[in-house]
Amino acid sequence: MKSWCALFLLLSTAVHAQPASKPRARDLGIPLNGKPGPFNAITDVPGVLVGYKTRIEGRGKWVLGKGPIRTGVTVVLPTGKTDRTYPAGYFIFNGDGEMTGIPYLHDYGTGFGPVGITNTNSVGVVRDAIGAWCHQRFSTKTALDFSFGLPLVGETWDGLLNDINGLHIQKEHVFQALESAASGTVLEGNVGGGTGMVCYGFKGGTGTASRQIRIGNQDYTVGVLVQANFGRRDDLMMAGVPVGKEVTDLMPVINEKDGSIIAIVGTDAPLVSSQLNLVAKRVTMGLARTGTYGTNSSGDIFMAFSTQKAAFDADTKTTTYRSVDKSSLDAVFKATVEATEEAILNALVAAETMEGIDHHKVYGLPHDRLKAVLKKYNRLNEGK
Amino acid sequence: MKSWCALFLLLSTAVHAQPASKPRARDLGIPLNGKPGPFNAITDVPGVLVGYKTRIEGRGKWVLGKGPIRTGVTVVLPTGKTDRTYPAGYFIFNGDGEMTGIPYLHDYGTGFGPVGITNTNSVGVVRDAIGAWCHQRFSTKTALDFSFGLPLVGETWDGLLNDINGLHIQKEHVFQALESAASGTVLEGNVGGGTGMVCYGFKGGTGTASRQIRIGNQDYTVGVLVQANFGRRDDLMMAGVPVGKEVTDLMPVINEKDGSIIAIVGTDAPLVSSQLNLVAKRVTMGLARTGTYGTNSSGDIFMAFSTQKAAFDADTKTTTYRSVDKSSLDAVFKATVEATEEAILNALVAAETMEGIDHHKVYGLPHDRLKAVLKKYNRLNEGK
Amino acid sequence: MKSWCALFLLLSTAVHAQPASKPRARDLGIPLNGKPGPFNAITDVPGVLVGYKTRIEGRGKWVLGKGPIRTGVTVVLPTGKTDRTYPAGYFIFNGDGEMTGIPYLHDYGTGFGPVGITNTNSVGVVRDAIGAWCHQRFSTKTALDFSFGLPLVGETWDGLLNDINGLHIQKEHVFQALESAASGTVLEGNVGGGTGMVCYGFKGGTGTASRQIRIGNQDYTVGVLVQANFGRRDDLMMAGVPVGKEVTDLMPVINEKDGSIIAIVGTDAPLVSSQLNLVAKRVTMGLARTGTYGTNSSGDIFMAFSTQKAAFDADTKTTTYRSVDKSSLDAVFKATVEATEEAILNALVAAETMEGIDHHKVYGLPHDRLKAVLKKYNRLNEGK
Amino acid sequence: MKSWCALFLLLSTAVHAQPASKPRARDLGIPLNGKPGPFNAITDVPGVLVGYKTRIEGRGKWVLGKGPIRTGVTVVLPTGKTDRTYPAGYFIFNGDGEMTGIPYLHDYGTGFGPVGITNTNSVGVVRDAIGAWCHQRFSTKTALDFSFGLPLVGETWDGLLNDINGLHIQKEHVFQALESAASGTVLEGNVGGGTGMVCYGFKGGTGTASRQIRIGNQDYTVGVLVQANFGRRDDLMMAGVPVGKEVTDLMPVINEKDGSIIAIVGTDAPLVSSQLNLVAKRVTMGLARTGTYGTNSSGDIFMAFSTQKAAFDADTKTTTYRSVDKSSLDAVFKATVEATEEAILNALVAAETMEGIDHHKVYGLPHDRLKAVLKKYNRLNEGK
Repeated sequence: MKSWCALFLLLSTAVHAQPASKPRARDLGIPLNGKPGPFNAITDVPGVLVGYKTRIEGRGKWVLGKGPIRTGVTVVLPTGKTDRTYPAGYFIFNGDGEMTGIPYLHDYGTGFGPVGITNTNSVGVVRDAIGAWCHQRFSTKTALDFSFGLPLVGETWDGLLNDINGLHIQKEHVFQALESAASGTVLEGNVGGGTGMVCYGFKGGTGTASRQIRIGNQDYTVGVLVQANFGRRDDLMMAGVPVGKEVTDLMPVINEKDGSIIAIVGTDAPLVSSQLNLVAKRVTMGLARTGTYGTNSSGDIFMAFSTQKAAFDADTKTTTYRSVDKSSLDAVFKATVEATEEAILNALVAAETMEGIDHHKVYGLPHDRLKAVLKKYNRLNEGK
Repeated sequence: MKSWCALFLLLSTAVHAQPASKPRARDLGIPLNGKPGPFNAITDVPGVLVGYKTRIEGRGKWVLGKGPIRTGVTVVLPTGKTDRTYPAGYFIFNGDGEMTGIPYLHDYGTGFGPVGITNTNSVGVVRDAIGAWCHQRFSTKTALDFSFGLPLVGETWDGLLNDINGLHIQKEHVFQALESAASGTVLEGNVGGGTGMVCYGFKGGTGTASRQIRIGNQDYTVGVLVQANFGRRDDLMMAGVPVGKEVTDLMPVINEKDGSIIAIVGTDAPLVSSQLNLVAKRVTMGLARTGTYGTNSSGDIFMAFSTQKAAFDADTKTTTYRSVDKSSLDAVFKATVEATEEAILNALVAAETMEGIDHHKVYGLPHDRLKAVLKKYNRLNEGK
Repeated sequence: MKSWCALFLLLSTAVHAQPASKPRARDLGIPLNGKPGPFNAITDVPGVLVGYKTRIEGRGKWVLGKGPIRTGVTVVLPTGKTDRTYPAGYFIFNGDGEMTGIPYLHDYGTGFGPVGITNTNSVGVVRDAIGAWCHQRFSTKTALDFSFGLPLVGETWDGLLNDINGLHIQKEHVFQALESAASGTVLEGNVGGGTGMVCYGFKGGTGTASRQIRIGNQDYTVGVLVQANFGRRDDLMMAGVPVGKEVTDLMPVINEKDGSIIAIVGTDAPLVSSQLNLVAKRVTMGLARTGTYGTNSSGDIFMAFSTQKAAFDADTKTTTYRSVDKSSLDAVFKATVEATEEAILNALVAAETMEGIDHHKVYGLPHDRLKAVLKKYNRLNEGK
Repeated sequence: MKSWCALFLLLSTAVHAQPASKPRARDLGIPLNGKPGPFNAITDVPGVLVGYKTRIEGRGKWVLGKGPIRTGVTVVLPTGKTDRTYPAGYFIFNGDGEMTGIPYLHDYGTGFGPVGITNTNSVGVVRDAIGAWCHQRFSTKTALDFSFGLPLVGETWDGLLNDINGLHIQKEHVFQALESAASGTVLEGNVGGGTGMVCYGFKGGTGTASRQIRIGNQDYTVGVLVQANFGRRDDLMMAGVPVGKEVTDLMPVINEKDGSIIAIVGTDAPLVSSQLNLVAKRVTMGLARTGTYGTNSSGDIFMAFSTQKAAFDADTKTTTYRSVDKSSLDAVFKATVEATEEAILNALVAAETMEGIDHHKVYGLPHDRLKAVLKKYNRLNEGK
């Protein structure tokens, strides 16, 4: 009888089932700026869907190819389950990581289909599965059929908790994530691609946040979703408060390798690819606000999209995208920085203590101690 | 009885079995500059191995998921079957394509493990399989095991001849390609990832060439391997001769979509990543010499590596790579341009007429007519 | 009596004074593709102006700060003498050179005001002078006045013929070039910034060409202007013919240092910055068609602009640029490659033998011998 | 009698004359991490010199071309007054600004000669003057003399206080800055290129800081010098404390246009260009720690260099630079983030209230109020 697999528990969590009682960063009194959307999530951007497949299976001793399994897949669908392309940009803050699809973003500045995030060693299977799903839905049924596309898939490394070399993500898991994709509340913490992640020596994972902005006479939303797997405890700051220097216990058993962060920024503001590259750069500043300095072993890759629809004129064969004027970009930049910071904090607040391979344990951020630290530095938002 | 598959089974060609009689571009009298290495191949660079898996199966009517199959995988192993990292660079001339692993090249300028080339829709499986192969060979057997790496895999689109959405490359095919990898003669034309490719309206595929250069008191080799799937007939030039304007028949049945080229440049000259980025840019010039102007639907991605070994000093934790001085780069640049041009011509000369899905036929370049055109323009190298 | 300055000759050549009898590349029978505009010049793009200041002064022994002077300034005004911004992109093929203003192109993808080209050591004065000229014309007369802009100025090195360290370009020369800017015929060869340049061991300098294209139901023009100062004789090809291997005499006295090329591409086709970056990359292919492989000491920097007007909506604060659809880019790419090649050939054909500092002599390409070489290879367009 | 210039003559301040009594950020009790070098300045990196020319002349009404003048030039000499090249990298966080010399950094990764920083409209004159100074010192006295180089010059906009369109920097001022360059204490605040700058609505300008690090068995220094002209008051944070939300008065008369920051990072740790690009990216994180989100009108350009000497082997024509191993980069990254943050704070702490054109007034940060705010949030380092 294999010891690693007694009592295994399988949770393929649905995206909508967030318990009402689970607090988020704002609920704990962390003082954060800006006005979030109704769900404080990337799904506040109209038309954007998020789906997950979470695999938490087995317990105990690590056996290659068996488990324990602590991993998953996250998908963000910028234009829902449609084949509409969208303007997109990206920024590589630190390149010890992967995101497929970057050459097309670089030269043509549009994306097509879902964006996936998973563990490092499953990028390929998720990439091909997203392509297959697009082909299944959008095929032209001709020989010149490019519905497979050049899928966008990022990753972070979950090998501290997960049997990552066991390659436990298969095509059907990606399809399940895609089919589950929905608007509304987005689960956070140990879900989807974020399942087995570690952040500032606490349990990390998936987080999201949004901001409402106004440009000219129009209201827009900027949403961010992160898969947070980076940072060293000592550096952790929350709203400027040195939390990592105050909470120095509850460390993971292994703490040598720093990880990565993937961020996806979406907005319904009319931006074009060159502007979205600038938006993606701003993720760096939201990241910096949580205290990290960007270690060498991090794959910090950020992707940004706008959901605006292009106008096409068949006579002149011209495509027209609108773009907010240059000075109006500041509202988008600020929202991106704030929502990135809050998405990371939300991931930390939501993620619960997890035990993975060989009983490696990573602790969830203790909410009460966080509040005490905020209070010590006169930054606790008492209204919460 | 399915008409498409009348018991047709074709060869997983070994890399060494090049028939001695098969002519290459030089053998046909195309006047080319420079001094090739003994095999006129990327394997002239000491330590570099090339492996293929070729799948040519079925015939006739196209049935999704069944075939006909005209595809494969090419692998280039810069440092053989070892886990030694190598300095590497890249250039994206046109981004309608994919190469995984680019973020790491961009920021850290070294590669690790084999480089793969396959069809567009199989990039993921090849990427994960290369990682798994590396893990199998180089695992540290610890939780902090990064032997899987961030594999480098490029692609071009073979859907005119191949049932590309049938996804006929599996993990075992990639392992077969890797295990077959060898030095010496490199097969060209309809082999490996190049199996189903089209180039200037003729049958394209895999090609390679090399140049011997001298820098200071040392001899080095520069080798190039291409997967050629690009270009419109009218633009084809060979050694400056407008071959495409002279040979205007033998066109493929469908000729609407232009394709791509992946090029891999290797050298034992001591270059560092910033220099290898410049080398990769020069591939563009070799490409241009064959007449194309770089169409929008091309994924033209070039990767370059040096096989030099780093020195490491444990006391100072410093790694030292040597680099040829700036002015000596010209020899490498020129060799890259020449070997790229010749590798493309070699692919065209080697690739034979192929029939694929729905009897789509793509013709091999007719050697006699090529010689006649060269003669017309007084460029035939009669010594050949 | 200063020996360097006997018989000095001052020519501040006007842009319009091209002698009718002076042949261009097509006139000599070089077989070139595509349909040029009426002037076969960048000024065929409506609204684009070109201006020069040419300084050819002194003769004989080189005296630092005195001369002989063989230099100048070229200006291209994408939107004429207006303050209208224009979409713009760029590509650095080889970075041993300078173009100011690149950070703004990189991030915001628009240009403002004239683009200058001069010698390497005068980039600063030309940059500041263009800014001052813009300020003089477009100042808002308020404290928040950004009419000076971030001028775009490129260079190539003319120190083989010119007393380059004498810094003979002053602000007034730049103003003269700007004031002289005009549409219509563009002088070529030893004019403007191209005055003292060397190309493939022949006298180089300024060249231009254009192509007419059709996209959808609209006609557009693509124009290119180059300052050609690159290449080694042995590599020179014209329309695929190895001219440099046939004309091996008439070499300059010093032939050690390879130079650079600046290219400016303009079009009235509606392109946006990300597309113009791709257009700028295509200059590389036109360059390659003349035979060079891109030496290390070259500053090969290419800039591209579209003259389309943006629509602005004050209510939503959105700017709208149109863009040709992706597949229509091919017409622009092809025109860019062809016009680049022809602009370089035009520079070589137009530039006449020049003697500079210390009697350094650089020969103009001999037209009759060129025709003989073309004939030898059956490429002479006899209709010319 | 000219009203703007009532006999007001102000100092061309020497770099060494820092009054001992002038407090810096640490002296005010701002809690900052890490261990600075002896001068807490970029000059702690052995061999690095800093020089200034400061022009503070005239008072009152603004007359174009007359003044008042509030501007200057800063020069950083990475390898002192020598012609030794140095490995260098860069990062453009936001491209609404200028730094000349970027193409060479991009492709060849080395710098040569002094780096200049000045006001936006004087980039050209400073660029040419640095080249002329290098030519004067390092000329080979031959026709092939490239001692002028491709100078590196950045800028920020001082038009709120300075008659920027009056172009008050001339060649001799740049030479004065270069000649004054020295090691040791570095003046901060209203000096050099930083003279007329504004930062977070307070008086900004020049600041510097350093960190001592250990890699392997070696000690190194990382130093940063900034020209700080960015940020909106509301966003200002110091050591995580929301200072900008607490000190909301003392605003400048005009506050519409956000500015820029140039940062120069130097180290004696053996880094190569690809690594220095990563170091330059980290400046973004130090910047973010002071609260900004990177506005659209900012020119945020960062340059990094290593002072290591290359070894050259004449037989093989190879140049060898050492590089710290990948994991050791973290010490450099952290030092860069910390020193950037502190350099900005030092600029804010040092810069004193200034009145410029048309009596525009910008207030220095009030030290006592800063201390009170730090105390309110329990972050005042009382030992100071």
